[in-house]
Amino acid sequence: MLKIRRIAIDTHPENTAFLLRKGNGYSAEQFQALRKIRIAGADASILATLAIADDLELLGPGEIGLGEQAFRRLGLPEGAEVSIAQAQPPQSLEYVRRKIDGDTLDDTEIRAIIGDIACYRYSPMEIGAFLVACAGFMSTQETLALTRTMAEIGSQLKWTSPVVVDKHCIGGIPGNRTSMIVVPIVAAHGLIMPKTSSRAITSPSGTADTMEVLANVDLSEAELQAVVEQENAVLAWGGRVNLSPADDVLISVERPLRIDTFEQMVASILSKKLAAGSTHLVIDIPVGPSAKVRSEREAIRLRKLFEYIAHRLGLTLDVVMTDGSQPVGRGIGPVLEARDVMAVLRNNDDAPADLRERALMLAGRVLEFDPELKGGAGYARAMELLGSGQALAAMERLIAKQGKRETPLEPGSFQHHIGSPVNGTIAAIDCHVIARIARLAGAPMDKGAGIDLLHKVGERVRRGEALYRIHAESQAGLAFARELAEETSGYTVAP
Amino acid sequence: MLKIRRIAIDTHPENTAFLLRKGNGYSAEQFQALRKIRIAGADASILATLAIADDLELLGPGEIGLGEQAFRRLGLPEGAEVSIAQAQPPQSLEYVRRKIDGDTLDDTEIRAIIGDIACYRYSPMEIGAFLVACAGFMSTQETLALTRTMAEIGSQLKWTSPVVVDKHCIGGIPGNRTSMIVVPIVAAHGLIMPKTSSRAITSPSGTADTMEVLANVDLSEAELQAVVEQENAVLAWGGRVNLSPADDVLISVERPLRIDTFEQMVASILSKKLAAGSTHLVIDIPVGPSAKVRSEREAIRLRKLFEYIAHRLGLTLDVVMTDGSQPVGRGIGPVLEARDVMAVLRNNDDAPADLRERALMLAGRVLEFDPELKGGAGYARAMELLGSGQALAAMERLIAKQGKRETPLEPGSFQHHIGSPVNGTIAAIDCHVIARIARLAGAPMDKGAGIDLLHKVGERVRRGEALYRIHAESQAGLAFARELAEETSGYTVAP
Repeated sequence: MLKIRRIAIDTHPENTAFLLRKGNGYSAEQFQALRKIRIAGADASILATLAIADDLELLGPGEIGLGEQAFRRLGLPEGAEVSIAQAQPPQSLEYVRRKIDGDTLDDTEIRAIIGDIACYRYSPMEIGAFLVACAGFMSTQETLALTRTMAEIGSQLKWTSPVVVDKHCIGGIPGNRTSMIVVPIVAAHGLIMPKTSSRAITSPSGTADTMEVLANVDLSEAELQAVVEQENAVLAWGGRVNLSPADDVLISVERPLRIDTFEQMVASILSKKLAAGSTHLVIDIPVGPSAKVRSEREAIRLRKLFEYIAHRLGLTLDVVMTDGSQPVGRGIGPVLEARDVMAVLRNNDDAPADLRERALMLAGRVLEFDPELKGGAGYARAMELLGSGQALAAMERLIAKQGKRETPLEPGSFQHHIGSPVNGTIAAIDCHVIARIARLAGAPMDKGAGIDLLHKVGERVRRGEALYRIHAESQAGLAFARELAEETSGYTVAP
Repeated sequence: MLKIRRIAIDTHPENTAFLLRKGNGYSAEQFQALRKIRIAGADASILATLAIADDLELLGPGEIGLGEQAFRRLGLPEGAEVSIAQAQPPQSLEYVRRKIDGDTLDDTEIRAIIGDIACYRYSPMEIGAFLVACAGFMSTQETLALTRTMAEIGSQLKWTSPVVVDKHCIGGIPGNRTSMIVVPIVAAHGLIMPKTSSRAITSPSGTADTMEVLANVDLSEAELQAVVEQENAVLAWGGRVNLSPADDVLISVERPLRIDTFEQMVASILSKKLAAGSTHLVIDIPVGPSAKVRSEREAIRLRKLFEYIAHRLGLTLDVVMTDGSQPVGRGIGPVLEARDVMAVLRNNDDAPADLRERALMLAGRVLEFDPELKGGAGYARAMELLGSGQALAAMERLIAKQGKRETPLEPGSFQHHIGSPVNGTIAAIDCHVIARIARLAGAPMDKGAGIDLLHKVGERVRRGEALYRIHAESQAGLAFARELAEETSGYTVAP
């Protein structure tokens, strides 16, 4: 038996355990060669990767160190006794091997795999193997089983209203922060729209990151229910309520491997919405040369997959294809995006017209889930709610109920302008490059970091005139971003 | 700039760096989300996975901790200044993504991938993605490029003799320690046979582990050359001489994922032999229900792939299919296997007949690479060299030159017998189960741990009579092994 010692090392997302090289009666290296050990205590056990310590200050003989993740997930106190053994690989890895060999898996097998993944029994390597095997071939039936299983594992939000609406964009377009405008419009109309969003993983900001500039988004399930009861809606971070936790684990491997198949995307999005209790959903698919979906043909294939899976799971779906040829709005990064969103809600003259227009269109589609609204009347109703200030009032109530941020955040004070290399017209803006520059500047962790786009496609600029301004909260962030921007600005200016 | 601090934590096989959560002017969590960072100093750089430390005793602000692997691979002293940045993913990952999408890769692309893998630029997850994509489909041309590239990266041993022979078994059969008998026979005959072997990764012993019971196997390239010059042969560990290092990295991921495709196997074996300077090679493919190859049809497919790749790379090959239906010899585990090998070389009456027979057959095939020997004369010559004691004398010279182990090792003193459940005849012995029990007992790290098989297939046993004896060097090892053996003995006894 070994005694638990908590080690203040965070190896997100993996469980790591630490064992002294010598003096345990165990051969630590032999365990390490097997990559994973099972740590079992009173009535809890976890799998962990083993690191070997040679430092007696970190760890004594007879002790097993647990990194932050492992300590939290095992849930036993320091000093508790545990035993270790070679981890028996999860049974479901046999199914992954069959998938690698080209087999199609049945519902039970997919359920077993996802169950083990959600409980952190797979290493990133094993998850990657499953995802790559699926990327090779995945049947519609497998995608359906995957989506259903992911939705069923973790929390399930329940609502009393028979119609619970949501909207979701598949992502990839910087600045496309329409949810923060659509939600207050829909709430003002009276439909139930409990919107849970993710934080950015590889993009410069997620809806949760941007909303957090204005209000607390870290709500418990009870707090979330209370806000929705009073205001019809909420704009919260989904991470706290544990919806489709398998999705979060899969994403942590999909992102670095840049696996972005339609099957995984559909399963990811629809499982989260089902777990969140949505009944009616608008999906926004931006199409453009640097978007996730690059042609209308691809967009139609994706739409059909969304529709099939949603239909089989009892979800009413409306898929909208939108212009994904350039970023939306002006600001990229949490503070700059929040500024744009509030400018639209306040009906300011300088509010970005493209962001306003797109939000109104999407809000109109969501509003038409209301059986009372005549077909085609959604857009006009959205205009009315925005123009009259009712949407702004709804947003202000949401902010107040979630917990308004006391001291406003400002755009980062370290700034640099990127100028046009020639006199000419802006022909294209690359979404990927703009996103990467904003990230290098520090977004989304540094809320004020990002990019302010001063000109968009079709506008004329003079040589040397600023195309955009980089904001950062540190000299290092500004230097990182500037280095890439000066190499590749992301703008194509045609003389 | 951050100052290097060496952290006594071994995260084999990955590079790990440690950064304090706060106070660096860096957002450690943001870097961690990207999984990998690039650490660059004066004229060296490495990629590493980032762990976040919250313990000021481990690490101060302005410092970056490097785990054992990272510290050694970067090669800079403690206190040296380095900068960190988001790791640019290796360019070759684009080719991996194309392979995932079903593309066939050309030689240049495979070369780029293997080059990056050999330099530890891929995470296990990324290596797994490449391997799984290859398991889906791999052309003969790709296998050829893979083998050639793997052989070219790392050290290349050079020999003056035009004929340099070797033999290799694809593995999977416990106790099949023929190399330690074949090598002295061939050396006594006068052919050059510089045998480098691996240590066991998932099996109870590799040739290097068993040879190490008798002699030092950790030879530098110069020492290895010197032994071969004097004795025609060597029985050394290959890990020190850095042959096909990409193979070692790939294997570290293949084993836990149990990816064992013929393409990877052929590339792994032939790349190591090419790098070792072999010109003539006997490949042993055991076929049996619990062996790696389970049918003659599969064995023929594997043989053809070996032959094609070897031919294209200028290697003369003789593929032998052998009985893989049960373990070979009696002992499983380093000390017990070494005992069997020496019993055969000493022509002891109680030497395991099956081990002796198989070694003679394989030695005969190797000897026939000698143009002087008439076809079919190899076996007789092998008999002569073994029976006359010339092979034993050659082995004793090898042991002396490599460095004889001073104090002999004994089988583990913690012992337990597993008895037959019925009166009957032994119908089958499962190679996997026997290997796992021997490993649980502590082999190969605990040299004396393992299994002594007291009866083999076809022998009659009485109820309760011992089928085999487990040896361990610790009470814990004996308990682990006994637990599995009492659940599943690995023996089928037909009443």
